[in-house]
Amino acid sequence: MLHPQRLFPTDPSARAIAGRLYASVKDLPILSPHGHTEAKWFADNQPFPDPATLLIQPDHYIFRMLYSQGIPLEHLGIGEHPIANPRGVWRLFAKHYYLFRGTPTRLWLDYCFHELFGLKVPLSLETADEYYDAMQAKLAQPEFRPRALFERFHIEVLATTNSPLDPLTHHLALRDSGWSGKVIPAFRPDPAVDPDFDGFQENVRQLGAMTGENTSHWLGYLSALRATRQRFRALGCTATDHGHPTPATADLDDDSATRLFHRIVSGSSTDTDRELFRAQMLTEMALMSLDDGLVMQIHPGSFRNHNRTVYKRFGRDMGADIPTQTDYVHNLRPLLQRVGNESNLTIILFTLDESTYSRELAPLAGHYPCLKLGPPWWFYDSPEGMRRFRERATETAGFYNTVGFNDDTRAFLSIPARHDVARRVDCAYLATLVADHRLQEDEAHEVALDLAYRLAKSAYKL
Amino acid sequence: MLHPQRLFPTDPSARAIAGRLYASVKDLPILSPHGHTEAKWFADNQPFPDPATLLIQPDHYIFRMLYSQGIPLEHLGIGEHPIANPRGVWRLFAKHYYLFRGTPTRLWLDYCFHELFGLKVPLSLETADEYYDAMQAKLAQPEFRPRALFERFHIEVLATTNSPLDPLTHHLALRDSGWSGKVIPAFRPDPAVDPDFDGFQENVRQLGAMTGENTSHWLGYLSALRATRQRFRALGCTATDHGHPTPATADLDDDSATRLFHRIVSGSSTDTDRELFRAQMLTEMALMSLDDGLVMQIHPGSFRNHNRTVYKRFGRDMGADIPTQTDYVHNLRPLLQRVGNESNLTIILFTLDESTYSRELAPLAGHYPCLKLGPPWWFYDSPEGMRRFRERATETAGFYNTVGFNDDTRAFLSIPARHDVARRVDCAYLATLVADHRLQEDEAHEVALDLAYRLAKSAYKL
Amino acid sequence: MLHPQRLFPTDPSARAIAGRLYASVKDLPILSPHGHTEAKWFADNQPFPDPATLLIQPDHYIFRMLYSQGIPLEHLGIGEHPIANPRGVWRLFAKHYYLFRGTPTRLWLDYCFHELFGLKVPLSLETADEYYDAMQAKLAQPEFRPRALFERFHIEVLATTNSPLDPLTHHLALRDSGWSGKVIPAFRPDPAVDPDFDGFQENVRQLGAMTGENTSHWLGYLSALRATRQRFRALGCTATDHGHPTPATADLDDDSATRLFHRIVSGSSTDTDRELFRAQMLTEMALMSLDDGLVMQIHPGSFRNHNRTVYKRFGRDMGADIPTQTDYVHNLRPLLQRVGNESNLTIILFTLDESTYSRELAPLAGHYPCLKLGPPWWFYDSPEGMRRFRERATETAGFYNTVGFNDDTRAFLSIPARHDVARRVDCAYLATLVADHRLQEDEAHEVALDLAYRLAKSAYKL
Repeated sequence: MLHPQRLFPTDPSARAIAGRLYASVKDLPILSPHGHTEAKWFADNQPFPDPATLLIQPDHYIFRMLYSQGIPLEHLGIGEHPIANPRGVWRLFAKHYYLFRGTPTRLWLDYCFHELFGLKVPLSLETADEYYDAMQAKLAQPEFRPRALFERFHIEVLATTNSPLDPLTHHLALRDSGWSGKVIPAFRPDPAVDPDFDGFQENVRQLGAMTGENTSHWLGYLSALRATRQRFRALGCTATDHGHPTPATADLDDDSATRLFHRIVSGSSTDTDRELFRAQMLTEMALMSLDDGLVMQIHPGSFRNHNRTVYKRFGRDMGADIPTQTDYVHNLRPLLQRVGNESNLTIILFTLDESTYSRELAPLAGHYPCLKLGPPWWFYDSPEGMRRFRERATETAGFYNTVGFNDDTRAFLSIPARHDVARRVDCAYLATLVADHRLQEDEAHEVALDLAYRLAKSAYKL
Repeated sequence: MLHPQRLFPTDPSARAIAGRLYASVKDLPILSPHGHTEAKWFADNQPFPDPATLLIQPDHYIFRMLYSQGIPLEHLGIGEHPIANPRGVWRLFAKHYYLFRGTPTRLWLDYCFHELFGLKVPLSLETADEYYDAMQAKLAQPEFRPRALFERFHIEVLATTNSPLDPLTHHLALRDSGWSGKVIPAFRPDPAVDPDFDGFQENVRQLGAMTGENTSHWLGYLSALRATRQRFRALGCTATDHGHPTPATADLDDDSATRLFHRIVSGSSTDTDRELFRAQMLTEMALMSLDDGLVMQIHPGSFRNHNRTVYKRFGRDMGADIPTQTDYVHNLRPLLQRVGNESNLTIILFTLDESTYSRELAPLAGHYPCLKLGPPWWFYDSPEGMRRFRERATETAGFYNTVGFNDDTRAFLSIPARHDVARRVDCAYLATLVADHRLQEDEAHEVALDLAYRLAKSAYKL
Repeated sequence: MLHPQRLFPTDPSARAIAGRLYASVKDLPILSPHGHTEAKWFADNQPFPDPATLLIQPDHYIFRMLYSQGIPLEHLGIGEHPIANPRGVWRLFAKHYYLFRGTPTRLWLDYCFHELFGLKVPLSLETADEYYDAMQAKLAQPEFRPRALFERFHIEVLATTNSPLDPLTHHLALRDSGWSGKVIPAFRPDPAVDPDFDGFQENVRQLGAMTGENTSHWLGYLSALRATRQRFRALGCTATDHGHPTPATADLDDDSATRLFHRIVSGSSTDTDRELFRAQMLTEMALMSLDDGLVMQIHPGSFRNHNRTVYKRFGRDMGADIPTQTDYVHNLRPLLQRVGNESNLTIILFTLDESTYSRELAPLAGHYPCLKLGPPWWFYDSPEGMRRFRERATETAGFYNTVGFNDDTRAFLSIPARHDVARRVDCAYLATLVADHRLQEDEAHEVALDLAYRLAKSAYKL
């Protein structure tokens, strides 16, 4: 099922080069500086319950595709804890596995089935039970517990993503556990800096309570955020992350910022105010990063919860977030005017709008010292998506304004599969440059190592 | 002139796979669920008059290219019925045939010349007369009459596109003719739902007269449209089509819709009113589709008649329609909030803005049960256009949220050529997935059959 | 270092075709109808001072990349005339040469090092001095003087880009020098037609002084521009160039234009006025081109001087110009309504927004007789950029609505390298069309010659 030369160029000469490059990076440790796994798994180290709960329920790539073909989310155990009939969910998924032909989900799953569970027949309704039983049996074994898998996957660092209100109990427990695995938090302040986030006002109050700051005033609010960043840093955090609807930034004077904040927390703000507040907060976060050294990640451009019916019934992250056109050139300018020329600041930009790779992102990152380009994100974390990123960004930004790979996943078992795809696709791209004589093979070996390991290590300060 | 392996990958291993896939689909019947041929041709079954009238005059792909190079449309017989000097027009075209190098028009025409007319020398000014005489002679033969060609092309279903004011005389004649060819109408209500359409007010009145409804009132107007859909359905119609400038949709309450309609029909509407009316009508059409089962096609984003001088002199469809940036995410939301989760509704989306394939269309179709992606349209009905569509849409939407191929043509003789190009390009894409081991070859065979035949059959209910 | 088959397809059959095509065009003379070299170099014919001053200081592609990685511009001799420590600048560049892997800059430089200076080892910190000394020695030789290089490069025509205030002293000197090299000016009126240009008001006054026209009135202003175009034409100028932030055009009546002009020159204009004025001036320039036959080039869509700090310290053209989304369809319409159907007018469109190639530019150029598509510009003057241009534009606009290559460079020594890359990439594209049987090889040979030489010659009237 898994061909050793998958994702390499089809031309034999380029394929051979790709094979040599890949051989030199395939066993490197995994750096996972951005993702959505849970520290609790590793702190508790309990077995994963069953294949459906492990692989289907948390993976919006999977259930959105099934939903798009008319399968109700209820039939997939979505919103059901625990899933009443996990074997039934698994069979439904297996029956429709053909829907994933040509998708990265298929590549990740086949890797996981084959490499982790030793399953060598294709998944289908006929083999659904054989799969389920084999996987269920493995999950009960000690070597399939979270920490064992972490070690087996050769993960050097794994970052989770956490609210500023998260007490980080599990990270604390891990620190004190004596286990050598490095699981660090990332600081994602959206719940307390995005006025449109569910429960924002209460979140700001709670942030005050947790830090002992008066968050009903602008300066106290900033101090509370600053203190929370320190709390995260103490547990190994090296990065922040910001999921705003747009990359709008602002650079208000103190009076304007103070007045804006009061409109926001008093609940008397307009849509424009709230967008301006998010914009101002990106600049505030950049200024704090200049002080405390946290690397800043900006993930803009998702229209969250586009499907109101699904949102009302099932909540966030249900596969109904849709990318939108994104303008970085005008939006980022206020922030860049303020801190863009700082070479001891790192801001990593992501996009869901591929038309910006060559038009905006590569030109920006190829000039401003503080900017770097994050890897292809979300729908573009795929062979064609990664290829387009390299083809469109490299000629202007080069390789050294990029930062390696993020798996960005809630699906823990897919982490090695995703890194493997990224390494294969990057080696394939490099092989093409070597095969048409744009690059020497010895250089390509260096770059392959950079892309698979060194750039993430340095950019994220791991 | 026509190489048997044209449009296949150049790498020998991928080429061989493409050849095997193509061999299994090349002789499948043609489903043509969306196009602009005329039922009259098949009802009357008269010979086509001459090569220029048949191939040049109705084909805006051809004359727009010639016009762009300074050849007056008058010299091409445009607007001339019948063409005074068809041989002269043909010679002028032949002299400039080199302009089409690298275009899909060239592929379609060469196929037609070679496969239908048996012409084996390249077309040029030198061979223009040889071509003209050979084609003229063939066109006079019974096997070149419309019905004979329909059968020779192995067309299973051919849909025309019709105004709600069209009495469908020729479809009625065909139904009663005893001929076995299936030529069905598609319901394109733009003349009576787009207030900016030429003669809209008169069209609405006429719709009332044809249906016996009072179309000066909102409910009567809706009833008239509903009745007309039934009239179309009785002649085999399975789909509607909507050619709005944008994909804006709205979901007004009854009072607002009623008041808007009265501003529209009274002629006191603003630009904003008219855009809102089109938006509301898309939702009304979707609601009617939920009732009567007609599949809905949305073809937005063309700036029609961009060249006013050409429009004034020659009218619509003169090669001066230009694509524009299109936003599906915000525009479709009102309609999707209303009916997006209905799995017994099919809405097929098309675009002239390729940047939306991966950013908007694939994510939307990969979530909403009612949405499917139409094939590359108009300027993108081409080898590179089709390849980009597959590369950008498949990883997020898969193959099964797409609906096979549309030829969308006024040029009847190009139908087999266009389907042949689509089958070749899809097989080439699948072959690449097999060659780099993203897909097994047996699966690729299934998908090839789906793309060439089964998806169109099921999506369009043929 | 320079493989003879670089940039050709990796598949052996396509590579062989590319090799045959390239062999037939590689030695053709260079037509350089658009660029930023200086007539002074050829008029004075003085030696270039040193490698850093020649290759680093004028090349924003180079120093923007170094700056993006935290190297201060001051360390690169930017803004320093003469450079105090050119060898130090060179070493710093050499140490960071790996940053250019995968970029076109690397291809141009390697070509230049190898073909012009005979350097056969890779550039690095270790070889920096060897490079510097070898190049310095060569630059002192008579065959490395500007005129000798011009001849060695086999340049048939070289256009510079000049302000309407430029007395063209060096072009006059060249005309009278007896040297056979053809160095012509291009008319770039931005300093006197863009109200946001530094010193605009003074520039308009000076234009009046230079022409004896009263440029405080609209008609006098137009006359002054007309007269200046004649002055340029007398020195061989065949083209104008317009670098507006957007491609907005307008077609005001005389009264409105007059009133607008007075608001502009009186300094009482709004942002909207200034954008409208630029828009009107594009139409005025097109009308003048209809009279005097100058080919019009429009280069829109750059957000100039995005980095205010760098601008304040170092001025314009410091690598901080960033592309923006560009709309051609609505913006160009007023101009096209006025002159779009004129087949004796040539307007060449460029873009920094690649999403417009297939959506807007190819459809526009494939219809309007006056429009042609310029080659990939700036960040897209690269192998992948050129490939995307051909893949996206050719199917709709064909080859014959394009105009060959522009090197558009300030880096004189890169001219042959850039033309070589363009010829290779175009031959690679054509080879792919031949290899998958979309084009016959004899036709591809004709097209290769058109793209490398004939289209530029005819479009630019050289």
